Amino acid sequence: MPRWYFEDFTPGFVLHGQGPTVTREDIIDFATKFDPQPFHLSDEAAKGTLFGALCASGWHTASMCMRMMCDAWLLDSASLGSPGVDNLRWLKPVFVGDTLRFTLTVLEQRPSRSRPDMGSVLGKQEVHNQKGEAVLEMTSWAMFRKRAADAQ
Amino acid sequence: MPRWYFEDFTPGFVLHGQGPTVTREDIIDFATKFDPQPFHLSDEAAKGTLFGALCASGWHTASMCMRMMCDAWLLDSASLGSPGVDNLRWLKPVFVGDTLRFTLTVLEQRPSRSRPDMGSVLGKQEVHNQKGEAVLEMTSWAMFRKRAADAQ
Repeated sequence: MPRWYFEDFTPGFVLHGQGPTVTREDIIDFATKFDPQPFHLSDEAAKGTLFGALCASGWHTASMCMRMMCDAWLLDSASLGSPGVDNLRWLKPVFVGDTLRFTLTVLEQRPSRSRPDMGSVLGKQEVHNQKGEAVLEMTSWAMFRKRAADAQ
Repeated sequence: MPRWYFEDFTPGFVLHGQGPTVTREDIIDFATKFDPQPFHLSDEAAKGTLFGALCASGWHTASMCMRMMCDAWLLDSASLGSPGVDNLRWLKPVFVGDTLRFTLTVLEQRPSRSRPDMGSVLGKQEVHNQKGEAVLEMTSWAMFRKRAADAQ
């Protein structure tokens, strides 16, 4: 049985996790596939922009946040997926050499009305860099099975 | 000079674009890197879930939407990046063999108060599959330079 179930995500519950140090190759590889805007492909092109230097696509940062959550707890949970995200904000660029970490804080826990074996959890995710600057913030819903359902 | 500037994104303006057909390798490659939940890695693991078959990570679908926008118009625009996304919703799973297309509809156009050479645009993005089903919907802000600024 997984470690984390719907019942565990009470409001105020907090989980932390560490990410990798972001490399130039990571940034360029993701951008080449999904977001080939010049400031995600080279330092030269980024110099004249608001970013100032090569930085990760915002979708890359969000995807790295997902991976950090998977590694820290989500793969050991009764996760049923997510219907969506509210208010995703890219607060600072993620540069080559940045080391990311995340914090998840549970905001709301809502049992399903139609499915007694599951429920939804609203969580606030924050990603910080090694300087303590917030680079990404979002609130998202996720669905989990109940422990009580698996235990039957 | 790029084709699309802040001035072009008047409320009601619509742009369309086509995406690729999603392969098993695409789905597994993205999931292995960023979202290794079992239902994004194999049909077998997905069978017992709400999805029923191997499906793309929601972050993969959002990233494919970004790529479709880049290919259709964004790389030929005076884009300055995006501060964030409101209300991202994953409405249906994206399966192997699905062919995606997107529609962008401009909702709001807001000149910057502090920077007369730029402005922000609120757009609604919808991604549909080949059956016409909406798989992703979001509204997001993007910043663009003004044509008037480049023309000086």
